[in-house]
Amino acid sequence: MQNIDVPEMNMPRVVIIGGGFGGLQLVKGLKNKDFQVVLLDRNNYHTFQPLLYQVATAGLEPDSIAFPIRKIFKKYKNFHFRLAEVERIDPELKKIYTNIGQLHFDYLVIATGSKTNFFGNDTLREFGMPLKTVTQALDLRSMMLQNFEKALLIPDLTERESTMNFVIVGGGPTGVELAGAMGELKKHVLPNDYPELDVRRMQIHLIEAGPKLLPGLSKDSSNKSVEYLKKLGVHVWLDTMVTNYNGQTVSTNVGKKLQAKNLVWSAGVMGNGIEGFSIDKIDRAGRINVNRCNQVEGYKDIFALGDVACMSEENYPKGHPMVAPVAMQQGELLAKNLVRLEAHKEAKPFTYIDKGSMATIGRNKAVVEIAKMKWNGAFAWFIWMFVHLISLVGFRNKTIVLVNWLWNYFNYDRGIRLIIRPFKRNKKDEEPAATLI
Amino acid sequence: MQNIDVPEMNMPRVVIIGGGFGGLQLVKGLKNKDFQVVLLDRNNYHTFQPLLYQVATAGLEPDSIAFPIRKIFKKYKNFHFRLAEVERIDPELKKIYTNIGQLHFDYLVIATGSKTNFFGNDTLREFGMPLKTVTQALDLRSMMLQNFEKALLIPDLTERESTMNFVIVGGGPTGVELAGAMGELKKHVLPNDYPELDVRRMQIHLIEAGPKLLPGLSKDSSNKSVEYLKKLGVHVWLDTMVTNYNGQTVSTNVGKKLQAKNLVWSAGVMGNGIEGFSIDKIDRAGRINVNRCNQVEGYKDIFALGDVACMSEENYPKGHPMVAPVAMQQGELLAKNLVRLEAHKEAKPFTYIDKGSMATIGRNKAVVEIAKMKWNGAFAWFIWMFVHLISLVGFRNKTIVLVNWLWNYFNYDRGIRLIIRPFKRNKKDEEPAATLI
Repeated sequence: MQNIDVPEMNMPRVVIIGGGFGGLQLVKGLKNKDFQVVLLDRNNYHTFQPLLYQVATAGLEPDSIAFPIRKIFKKYKNFHFRLAEVERIDPELKKIYTNIGQLHFDYLVIATGSKTNFFGNDTLREFGMPLKTVTQALDLRSMMLQNFEKALLIPDLTERESTMNFVIVGGGPTGVELAGAMGELKKHVLPNDYPELDVRRMQIHLIEAGPKLLPGLSKDSSNKSVEYLKKLGVHVWLDTMVTNYNGQTVSTNVGKKLQAKNLVWSAGVMGNGIEGFSIDKIDRAGRINVNRCNQVEGYKDIFALGDVACMSEENYPKGHPMVAPVAMQQGELLAKNLVRLEAHKEAKPFTYIDKGSMATIGRNKAVVEIAKMKWNGAFAWFIWMFVHLISLVGFRNKTIVLVNWLWNYFNYDRGIRLIIRPFKRNKKDEEPAATLI
Repeated sequence: MQNIDVPEMNMPRVVIIGGGFGGLQLVKGLKNKDFQVVLLDRNNYHTFQPLLYQVATAGLEPDSIAFPIRKIFKKYKNFHFRLAEVERIDPELKKIYTNIGQLHFDYLVIATGSKTNFFGNDTLREFGMPLKTVTQALDLRSMMLQNFEKALLIPDLTERESTMNFVIVGGGPTGVELAGAMGELKKHVLPNDYPELDVRRMQIHLIEAGPKLLPGLSKDSSNKSVEYLKKLGVHVWLDTMVTNYNGQTVSTNVGKKLQAKNLVWSAGVMGNGIEGFSIDKIDRAGRINVNRCNQVEGYKDIFALGDVACMSEENYPKGHPMVAPVAMQQGELLAKNLVRLEAHKEAKPFTYIDKGSMATIGRNKAVVEIAKMKWNGAFAWFIWMFVHLISLVGFRNKTIVLVNWLWNYFNYDRGIRLIIRPFKRNKKDEEPAATLI
């Protein structure tokens, strides 16, 4: 296997796998420090995952939520990006092996995030649509629009309805926000586009296995989100577990069956682990066990952070929630710790500061909890928009998203109802790989 | 074959194949007239082809230049859109056959536009990239960026250069505008993204078989465009015909050989004809012969317009240029003529009004000819932008394009350097088909 052509420098080489929230924060923290930083990702862009559901529901284009990694770091010295898929690592030889060659590291940081967990159910994997990547969001958009075009051709009313029906499994932020956005599409957009279909007959279901939606939020906010969803015509099923889906019939553990050609699976994520560690270093959710300094058990120079890491803390004995702020805070601290370790100082332990949580359901409908304060309604919706806007990378992206949101707000519209690449089930994009030609 | 489910109405049915410039204009002209209008297209959107090259060069996203057809006509009565691929027509039975079923027509309008002409050269078809559709533009963007990522891994300097090199064949507006945009990428964007590559060594070639660029414009404007291109570092070859390309070596009829992994073929288009007519109705460029009222020879109720039609006029004995204004003017007149024919009046013959032509090469660099006036430089560039902005469908699209152009202008940037769907040669998107699941 050839070496990846990266200059040899007289400074330690930090290899970071994954350009998500954690990886990016780490690179920023290492700016102008005495490290050579090599970032590897299978995509040449960073994905702002919290807004993926808006790409799926025709509200935004990929460029609004994807940002070229090279552009973010164009003024960084000693920084190298390589478009690569990591195949495995050898912790003892301090080497990683990728589809473009091998590379030696002094420090390795695994920041590969999470992937959809189908809990080993192959039919669910085949027919359920995940929503973790840009291409999956585009697939979902195409599939939904194709199914509406198809519904026009179906004379049988029951089959026609099931072709329009939309089931979302998993009541976390992704599921709730997607369900709300679908509710708005049904209310404001689809009836105009398809006057020949009785869009009122389209059913949207949100199914959650636990007793409440948005587990990260309070009972009040959770109830409010159910209320908002019902206003938008979404059927909410709590304490209900989807046991199977064959592309047509959704089976549940409470006997209820639903007919739907569209099913989004956002009911589980697992660590997007990497080959090369012994099994005892990995927890049941596929996460790599790390100490409070993000060091992988047994190694001084190999780290994992964010969704793929499982760190036990006082308030989080089974690991942190798999959300962006954890990854960002860990990335920030790890940059400092790497500097400390190089200076033969002790690394500082991580403590998660939970700044709150929020979800938007529709226009003027959101729930927000920051510190011990709670809001809902229009004000919460503005906070949600403001926080997401300022979190986007780059002025251009912020402006484009704002234009789209203003347009959607004043016109009750979603402008991007385009089937650019028709979705084909047999070519489903499970885990997209950035391949060279 | 089942019937396409379209209501039976007590008014004549006009079936239009193709939602391009001509088809759209025709639907608009038939608004509130006593016709049932059925529009078929393989995509659910209209493509604003003049700006495709900006999608290819990371300046715009598809939603800026693609507009959902259902949205355009959402307030039209007696209008039906169907996402379909037409397989053939039977002019005698007055039926068309598609991938979603068959349909009877009273009037048929073929507005299928043009497709890339490789003049029967299979290796050119295999390795040359066409630029007629949104997906082709996205493929081209991905391919170029993937090749730059790949160049980083190539130690051999000659091979590394050929991986960066870019050859554009065909000196019409598409070729000239694409060459200019590539010149700007090379100058302002790629060196920042790839500091490890010597981007100065990247060569951009524009090859034209005829004696001048932009055949629709005057010699002065053509010379000016050559001057602009040279300023941007583009090598312009006139009177040079590309005879072959094997993915690596570009062969020409003057003995010159170029090494390049990227080749765009914009040197020829042909009518995107339809099966069902006898061969004598089709000209050598694949266009359907029509009379001055766009009637296909021998039929009173079958029409063809725009690029796919060949109409002989005083000043255009061999047919009109294959450009949008011809299609739009023909669509406008044909709407009136259909009304006249239904009222048993005679159809009016078409006369093309050439309002001018223009091309942009780069920032502050454009050539414009309107009536007998000619401009170039910054003022021409503003005219070009203004005309293209107001021609875009919809306020949202205009705003998004303007934001992107302002961003690009003030930052010397192209923000959308994203490889969303990696390009794979063996899955090349020749003629994309919108398929239902």
